Amino acid sequence: MTADAPPSVDSVTEQTFIARVLGADRSALEAKGTAGLRSELMRVLREAVRMGRLAPGVRLPSSRSLAADLGLARNTVADAYAELVAEGWFIARQGSGTRVAQRAELPRAESRRATGLAPLRTVRPRPAHNLMPGLPDLSTFPRADWLKSSRRALAAAPNDALGYGDPRGRVELRTALADYLARARRVYTHPEHIVICAGFTQALKLVGEVLRRRQAREVAVESYGLDVHWRLLADAGLHMPCLPVDGSGARTGNLAGMRGVGAVLLTPAHQFPTGALLHPDRRAAAVDWARSTGGLILEDDYDGEFRYDRHPVGALQGIDPERVVHLGTTSKSLAPGLRLGWMVLPESLVTEVVETKGISDWSASALEQLTLAEFIESGAYDRHVRSMRLRYRRRRDQLVAVLAERAPEVRVSGVPAGLHAMLELPKGGEALALRAAAWQGLALEGFSRFRHPDEAPGRDALVIGYGAPTDSAWAGALEALCRVLTQMP
Amino acid sequence: MTADAPPSVDSVTEQTFIARVLGADRSALEAKGTAGLRSELMRVLREAVRMGRLAPGVRLPSSRSLAADLGLARNTVADAYAELVAEGWFIARQGSGTRVAQRAELPRAESRRATGLAPLRTVRPRPAHNLMPGLPDLSTFPRADWLKSSRRALAAAPNDALGYGDPRGRVELRTALADYLARARRVYTHPEHIVICAGFTQALKLVGEVLRRRQAREVAVESYGLDVHWRLLADAGLHMPCLPVDGSGARTGNLAGMRGVGAVLLTPAHQFPTGALLHPDRRAAAVDWARSTGGLILEDDYDGEFRYDRHPVGALQGIDPERVVHLGTTSKSLAPGLRLGWMVLPESLVTEVVETKGISDWSASALEQLTLAEFIESGAYDRHVRSMRLRYRRRRDQLVAVLAERAPEVRVSGVPAGLHAMLELPKGGEALALRAAAWQGLALEGFSRFRHPDEAPGRDALVIGYGAPTDSAWAGALEALCRVLTQMP
Repeated sequence: MTADAPPSVDSVTEQTFIARVLGADRSALEAKGTAGLRSELMRVLREAVRMGRLAPGVRLPSSRSLAADLGLARNTVADAYAELVAEGWFIARQGSGTRVAQRAELPRAESRRATGLAPLRTVRPRPAHNLMPGLPDLSTFPRADWLKSSRRALAAAPNDALGYGDPRGRVELRTALADYLARARRVYTHPEHIVICAGFTQALKLVGEVLRRRQAREVAVESYGLDVHWRLLADAGLHMPCLPVDGSGARTGNLAGMRGVGAVLLTPAHQFPTGALLHPDRRAAAVDWARSTGGLILEDDYDGEFRYDRHPVGALQGIDPERVVHLGTTSKSLAPGLRLGWMVLPESLVTEVVETKGISDWSASALEQLTLAEFIESGAYDRHVRSMRLRYRRRRDQLVAVLAERAPEVRVSGVPAGLHAMLELPKGGEALALRAAAWQGLALEGFSRFRHPDEAPGRDALVIGYGAPTDSAWAGALEALCRVLTQMP
Repeated sequence: MTADAPPSVDSVTEQTFIARVLGADRSALEAKGTAGLRSELMRVLREAVRMGRLAPGVRLPSSRSLAADLGLARNTVADAYAELVAEGWFIARQGSGTRVAQRAELPRAESRRATGLAPLRTVRPRPAHNLMPGLPDLSTFPRADWLKSSRRALAAAPNDALGYGDPRGRVELRTALADYLARARRVYTHPEHIVICAGFTQALKLVGEVLRRRQAREVAVESYGLDVHWRLLADAGLHMPCLPVDGSGARTGNLAGMRGVGAVLLTPAHQFPTGALLHPDRRAAAVDWARSTGGLILEDDYDGEFRYDRHPVGALQGIDPERVVHLGTTSKSLAPGLRLGWMVLPESLVTEVVETKGISDWSASALEQLTLAEFIESGAYDRHVRSMRLRYRRRRDQLVAVLAERAPEVRVSGVPAGLHAMLELPKGGEALALRAAAWQGLALEGFSRFRHPDEAPGRDALVIGYGAPTDSAWAGALEALCRVLTQMP
């Protein structure tokens, strides 16, 4: 869209390079006398990397052709490349020429300038194969249907929908969600108990703040989960004792013995990352605990629509709407980029949450909310979920079948659901597999990465996200995974 | 949009009523024996109000016609209406039949159920005339152009734009903004120092958190401003000493004498609500203070594009990009409902802000960000701002002219800019005017409403938002204002 946007291709042709990368600096370059040329070229190239005009992993033109194009001696360019390789800006690989290094490899001296960029996702290198858990297949986003819904929603929107909104979010969306969640997830609620958020993280942050105001000190969490969620709760000043997780989900029976716990964060439909379904007895135990102690259950229903062997098990919220905060988003069903999520609240919590949210009022875009409402009402959401369910189910079946054939010692655990599966490995296998995966350029996660600090090291396993790749990339990713697993001793 | 959405018309025809309002409950109703009929009908109607299927203010069908339609005795319906009026659910007005009451009028016994709703904007009664400051004319939102930009942006978006985003926001938007802000506001920055937020409030919340982490205790604010901003900073644990405001803006010279102040929140282009432009000497004083103490200037540029007598004065940020955090949004220029804003950060602050934001990552919708980028790049944003500038300027000129003729004792103060003007009244005039305005059904604000707690009571004045009304409503609102001002003793 703009001249400054990083080239999307993975190599830069000389012309692009001159136009996009050097840009105005070219003249500065040409102004220099021969002496300063090399260092000036280096400065320009460093700046191009810093400014993102040269994205990590991009291949640079050969020193010969760039030199010809800039009217410099080839050695000047070759030396500049060499020094930047030495400094860690570029990488020279046999056969693949000179490439821009990953930011992580920036030399210490540069780290201050670089820190603004280093932690950001967008500048991460693209792996050759992506099996990271937690991502849907973004290529399947129903752009045409979504645009149609935007058009309808925008045409129907009253003017004041464009004003400062109700902190709960648009009533049209809350109404559509109340219907949908009742239908799809057996959630029992009505629109005025739903609050729209910018994704799950905002919802959890809000609940954390409310719990803190209610003098809660601790929120129990599952012994395996996402550290970003734990950090959010910690930021709210909460401690997080953990419940052991096994094949039947979290041991919610332990809650009875925990003092000072005001809430418990669970993934009942599909424990992340083990993939376990919370056992009926443990659902009951959680609800009994909540009722007897006045505690809250935070139900993270992140991929509840995706069950492949049966109709999805109804949400825990349906059992006791007054004790369960049901949290969902469109991040797995549509796209995380929409930043749309919802909290289904016990009536007793609505006012506090709305007031807490109302202060900062960082609600989602009204137009996006109206678009999603229309998207759901029109049936497009159900259609999309159905087709994604088939797609992901196919992938999971292929994963299971291929592994059974080529890596029979690897066990796929967890219920057939969601966008990820856990592969249990022989003792010591996880570290080996991760190293092998790195060599294959295959991005995936190890089970231990999700372990709660208080939990003792457990099984060796991999967490495979089969949602992430596009259909065309899926076969290659699966093949890479097999190579990783078969290469292991 | 949905069967459950409140009818947009202000009265409900019998058919709509049966279909939308009673819906499934009709059968429940028909199942009842005569005895329970009235109470059952009341239950159904109460629920319809609670669920928002009957919106506040909606006129109900006559008891005669509803009775006929439901096959009930007219008295059954009439009695049910009467009791619900008695309970405070409905209101019966001479001539206008029976209407749903405003939620605020729910009887005490119901207030617990109602608390979730009471404080929310959407259920406030609509005033006859709206001159509230802080709102643009929402009827002018360029729906067609925006939709065109959405279509283009969605077509051009790479798949991974739909993934979990860079906490800074989309590079396309940051790049477009860097250009635009340099052009329109003389802001000196580049894309990697810009962070996209969900409006000004999120930006201020983030800066507040970062200041707190830096051990700042106090943020100086202007002696007149928005209490919601003060609350945000207070929530971050900051104290807020204030700088007196006069015709030349905030007395930034006082900063030198204030100990422990880590930052100052200013509205340099158009002080809110006095409308003063920050005097050059005071701009210099603020920057000198920031440089000598290492303090930060938070520049709230909420309506900087709207200056009517000259080219807008450049942003303070241009003077010292390393000491000023420049904050802007589309809330005044396009619509608050977009929840799109930006922070232009000193390089030294980027990492902390991005990390603080990254934890919760409540960034705005990627599609909305790409749409705004395209909207700016296509020139539609400049066109829209230009046409709004003409529209608001015309309104401000009319306001000044009409008041000069009909209320010559009222002085319009502040520079000709933005979406609001301050009307200075004779001593004691503010309270009288507010009361008169209430009688006229005219919504506006009194000056004292924006006074900082530490500030002594000041002039009597009104703050008039001439942005809020539509073109068709503007004349009526202006006339109502004149009646208010001329009715005063």
